[in-house]
Amino acid sequence: MYRVAILTISDRGARSEREDRSGPALAEAIAGLPGAEVVARAVVPDERAEIEAALRRWVAEGLDLILTTGGTGFSPRDVTPEATRAVIDREAPGLAEAMRAASLRVTPHAMLSRAVAGMASCTLIVNLPGSPKAACENLHTILPALPHGLDKLRGDPAECATP
Amino acid sequence: MYRVAILTISDRGARSEREDRSGPALAEAIAGLPGAEVVARAVVPDERAEIEAALRRWVAEGLDLILTTGGTGFSPRDVTPEATRAVIDREAPGLAEAMRAASLRVTPHAMLSRAVAGMASCTLIVNLPGSPKAACENLHTILPALPHGLDKLRGDPAECATP
Amino acid sequence: MYRVAILTISDRGARSEREDRSGPALAEAIAGLPGAEVVARAVVPDERAEIEAALRRWVAEGLDLILTTGGTGFSPRDVTPEATRAVIDREAPGLAEAMRAASLRVTPHAMLSRAVAGMASCTLIVNLPGSPKAACENLHTILPALPHGLDKLRGDPAECATP
Repeated sequence: MYRVAILTISDRGARSEREDRSGPALAEAIAGLPGAEVVARAVVPDERAEIEAALRRWVAEGLDLILTTGGTGFSPRDVTPEATRAVIDREAPGLAEAMRAASLRVTPHAMLSRAVAGMASCTLIVNLPGSPKAACENLHTILPALPHGLDKLRGDPAECATP
Repeated sequence: MYRVAILTISDRGARSEREDRSGPALAEAIAGLPGAEVVARAVVPDERAEIEAALRRWVAEGLDLILTTGGTGFSPRDVTPEATRAVIDREAPGLAEAMRAASLRVTPHAMLSRAVAGMASCTLIVNLPGSPKAACENLHTILPALPHGLDKLRGDPAECATP
Repeated sequence: MYRVAILTISDRGARSEREDRSGPALAEAIAGLPGAEVVARAVVPDERAEIEAALRRWVAEGLDLILTTGGTGFSPRDVTPEATRAVIDREAPGLAEAMRAASLRVTPHAMLSRAVAGMASCTLIVNLPGSPKAACENLHTILPALPHGLDKLRGDPAECATP
């Protein structure tokens, strides 16, 4: 069983000016990970402090996987990767590289994704793009590797220091 | 309209012992970006402080794009990526990955490129290799994504903090 | 002539509970680099301080290349990339990207590799996976670029500051 949280990062979403379509789409797509259960969801604005706070809360709760959607692009307010880097203690660059390489076969704009992936204690955090379609495509790319990665990550719970 | 600067990084170029061929080649190749205008060019030696100073000056002037050529390899004096990392506040790893992946289809030596890309305030900085041919090939790889990236980056000028 | 060291990182290997098969496999495979001579080998546990100490000792001895095997995955005790990053002063992301991209054609698990490569003074350090097969496959990927990279790195010994 993998306990999963989904964080939507969007200024307009947080002000309820735009419906969050990426969060629900990911909640559905994560069914492709056998044993996954979405136990938490939230929408925060593109503010580094609020993103970090949400991530740290779920890491402290010992969740297995946090998927973020939004805030990974070039806009001045896109700071999801910076917030993520501040929270993780070990980076997993291969996940981000694989997602970008796969997306690049669909569109050259994929190279603009600044997504980061890594672990904070025994929680894996993966940044996904903001659009529902791109977020699900990126998740699909890493799904085949996630079970092995997540199982290794919580291999020995005694190793997971309280953050 | 995109205001572009080109920085050639070369010890011999800075001492006028070698003609700068990469700077002019890039100035020509950037015509592939509609609306681009080269407004500044300079040649500095492989000295981290001088590279950083040139980058910071152009960021402060609010240029849209800075292309560097040279200093991205394995020589002990190659420090362009380190100077760039010290200046940017947000990294854009997808641009560097895409350039290396494309170059790797031409030569295995492409994996020796340590090029970095990222934003300082609302200026995008992209490291390119030192040879005119490789620099232009790498620029060609990212050209299709640059307009969208640059437009997003300066979306709301009020967000561009003075560095 | 390239002076090479091989560091096996494994808790069980360091306790002699498991035979080190990756170290000897790499010692054999490095013959694919003409002029390479393995001058040092060691086995340390997955402890960041011990990994860093081994790396720093060999950097101080001026070795040309250090290959590590093990500790690059998702297990809580996998800290080889973090130890490596603490020792290097310049990162060479293209080597790690190329190895992961090549491995990804073999297995999706390749995206879980957190391997890092970079230089400390004039020594190149490259993380390789823990399994003998994967370690040798990854080494094979970068072999065509290593001679040029290593030759550039020690181009002018006067540039190699004592760390």
